[in-house]
Amino acid sequence: MTMAPNDRGANETVFTLEATQLKFGNGAVEELDWELKRLGLRKILLVADPRLRRLGMTERVTDIIARAGVEISVFENILVEPTIESLGEAAAFAASRDVDGFVALGGGSTIDTAKVANLIRSHGGAIIDYVNAPVGGGRKPPSPLRPLIAIPTTSGSGSEATTVAVLDIPELKMKTGISHRYMRPTLAIVDPELARTTPGAVTASCGLDVVCHAVESFISRPFDARPRPATPDDRPPYQGSNPVADIWSLKAIEFGGRFLERAVRDGNDLEARGTMMLGATMAGIGFGTAGVHIPHACAYPLAGLKHSYSAPGYETSHNFVPHGFSVIVTSPAVFRFTYDAAPDKHIQAAELLNAGPIANPGRDTLPDTLIRLMKAVGAPSGIAELGYGEEDIPALVQGALKQQRLLVGAPKAIDAAGIEAVMRQSLRNW
Amino acid sequence: MTMAPNDRGANETVFTLEATQLKFGNGAVEELDWELKRLGLRKILLVADPRLRRLGMTERVTDIIARAGVEISVFENILVEPTIESLGEAAAFAASRDVDGFVALGGGSTIDTAKVANLIRSHGGAIIDYVNAPVGGGRKPPSPLRPLIAIPTTSGSGSEATTVAVLDIPELKMKTGISHRYMRPTLAIVDPELARTTPGAVTASCGLDVVCHAVESFISRPFDARPRPATPDDRPPYQGSNPVADIWSLKAIEFGGRFLERAVRDGNDLEARGTMMLGATMAGIGFGTAGVHIPHACAYPLAGLKHSYSAPGYETSHNFVPHGFSVIVTSPAVFRFTYDAAPDKHIQAAELLNAGPIANPGRDTLPDTLIRLMKAVGAPSGIAELGYGEEDIPALVQGALKQQRLLVGAPKAIDAAGIEAVMRQSLRNW
Repeated sequence: MTMAPNDRGANETVFTLEATQLKFGNGAVEELDWELKRLGLRKILLVADPRLRRLGMTERVTDIIARAGVEISVFENILVEPTIESLGEAAAFAASRDVDGFVALGGGSTIDTAKVANLIRSHGGAIIDYVNAPVGGGRKPPSPLRPLIAIPTTSGSGSEATTVAVLDIPELKMKTGISHRYMRPTLAIVDPELARTTPGAVTASCGLDVVCHAVESFISRPFDARPRPATPDDRPPYQGSNPVADIWSLKAIEFGGRFLERAVRDGNDLEARGTMMLGATMAGIGFGTAGVHIPHACAYPLAGLKHSYSAPGYETSHNFVPHGFSVIVTSPAVFRFTYDAAPDKHIQAAELLNAGPIANPGRDTLPDTLIRLMKAVGAPSGIAELGYGEEDIPALVQGALKQQRLLVGAPKAIDAAGIEAVMRQSLRNW
Repeated sequence: MTMAPNDRGANETVFTLEATQLKFGNGAVEELDWELKRLGLRKILLVADPRLRRLGMTERVTDIIARAGVEISVFENILVEPTIESLGEAAAFAASRDVDGFVALGGGSTIDTAKVANLIRSHGGAIIDYVNAPVGGGRKPPSPLRPLIAIPTTSGSGSEATTVAVLDIPELKMKTGISHRYMRPTLAIVDPELARTTPGAVTASCGLDVVCHAVESFISRPFDARPRPATPDDRPPYQGSNPVADIWSLKAIEFGGRFLERAVRDGNDLEARGTMMLGATMAGIGFGTAGVHIPHACAYPLAGLKHSYSAPGYETSHNFVPHGFSVIVTSPAVFRFTYDAAPDKHIQAAELLNAGPIANPGRDTLPDTLIRLMKAVGAPSGIAELGYGEEDIPALVQGALKQQRLLVGAPKAIDAAGIEAVMRQSLRNW
């Protein structure tokens, strides 16, 4: 930190932290009625993952909401990895209903859908207007949205704690997002019992996403390496690593190292699943201020360009790359590349993930630790397994380069040749 | 944590976290105008420590507020360690003004004064109505208060992050408080440059308060050792230690161990003062959910019963015991007593405070570490130095016992005989 009084230099000296209110624990969802009453809500839209109805979860939550005397509409046409069309449908549904608040029940795709529906219900306009520039109009919501209570049922996206909704635009063959502080949910109710029925393969992908969020954030370009913004309005949502975000990121890395394998193996291991859910939210708070960078930038084209991967554990009618797998596959190569920028932080992350010290640490320590974890939880071995070959690399590089918003957060500048090398090394990690 | 599905037992399974929005860094106060505009405020009451005027800080902040085109009234009649009368004066002043928001500039006493002024301005009534039962009426504010931006100039109370205002009731010879989630400031702007002029002795007392907040919270009775409340409304503000509060508490303990001595020695050591300010806010978030217990319960009568201690560094017309000294003096005896409840946590706290492992750890490890820190920063050696003798112990015990709200948070039950032993051991810690 620049510490000379009254001579603060040209770089940023300030960071901010806003954390979603959190209610955590077994049975926490039983307090949803009380929270709705506290917020004074009378008519809500429940945005729910359709698969949860078969498990009785949607009905259970509907019953809890009814106890509060709150009117409910339900929207369940959620696409896993939402597209601008699927979000548009949710937004149109919300806009046609007289609702004063939202409840989201599901994983990141569901929570992101609820965020966008709330945005359009609250402020009108077309979704593309709000999508991050240059793809969209970069319009900012002028005032807070309606209250949104997010109830995650997976332990991955951390969307319950973030300001971002991610969306796929198939005609542009790209994924992008909408991000603004007002998109952050009002309250996250995180109830480990809700994650018991998540298939192990889904838990694996989600958990690897948590690990990536946390490691990328911890290793992101420090906030005070960025030039000071002209006004606080211009401070980016992804500010770079800072002493407070680091605390959240480190804890999430530690949890990933200690609990992910157990959580994948046994859905009834509520300690492991519960801790991973808490870790997902913590990582969400961490990357919600610090930001993710190269692996997430590479994940966008990996998820958007081809849809040939049949994701185990997910019951969907279409092939797609689960988000966690799309981010983890390039992470070994990325952290081999970024090592010089902050060797100590790379080693610290690896030792936390490894739950213990590592002998003779160096450039390969964090990549090797990540690969060991990927193998242990059944992740794909690289982008070849996701359906990409040498011939796809130029298109993948172009897709990743479009994510400059993320790439500027890397601790070391990366260009087309750098991303090409990452993609090539990531064809097969083992 | 109770983890058996659908059989959650009789104990609490849920904890919550609400963190004040934080803006941290050198020069952060320069963004106050932008924040006032963002909140849509037009007429604010600036509650400011009167000593800051002489240092030019009040004028500087007034100028920043004026840039936002916001009308300002100023209240500066702050009592260090506020009484119900001094708070009443601030509340009457606020009630007589047409203000739609508050800015507090000062230490814990100033921020607490602004919280209470905001409470009465927003919801009317007498202060005693809202004071914690059984001393006061325990009335709860029915809806959120007006926005309050807290700008701490010391690194101690963490009041910018908590739901509590502490007050002295001289006719009852006791200190007590008002606590409710709506008392938490809307935003904390923590700017290390503002702490440069704080005298070293004040930094010492404030920093020992931070250490006590953090150690007490970390060692408090776990949230899931408490019976489940009948409704979420009955969940106490001090919920007990939990995995999220622990993260904040541990970081604050670490910062205290690494930076407090440096911060006391040199006001221009902005890294040390800045880190202690961040630590104060972090500890505030931690104890704001976990809670403090025996040392703070003992501190109430120690600060309220006699006013014979002349506090170094504080420019006041009256003798009083600085809050940090009143809590730290009994902490060695308290943590000797609580050791059995969680030996590992006591040792972990000591090693963080010591910035390294301690050989042959045991019951005296944490007390000895605290005593070493107290000596290093010039704290009083015990309650004798604060003006108390053997003959005062019965009254001190009675005073501490009144703080059942805090004592229930201890990891081990303590009765009158236990508190008497603590007081006796604390007459002289060295």
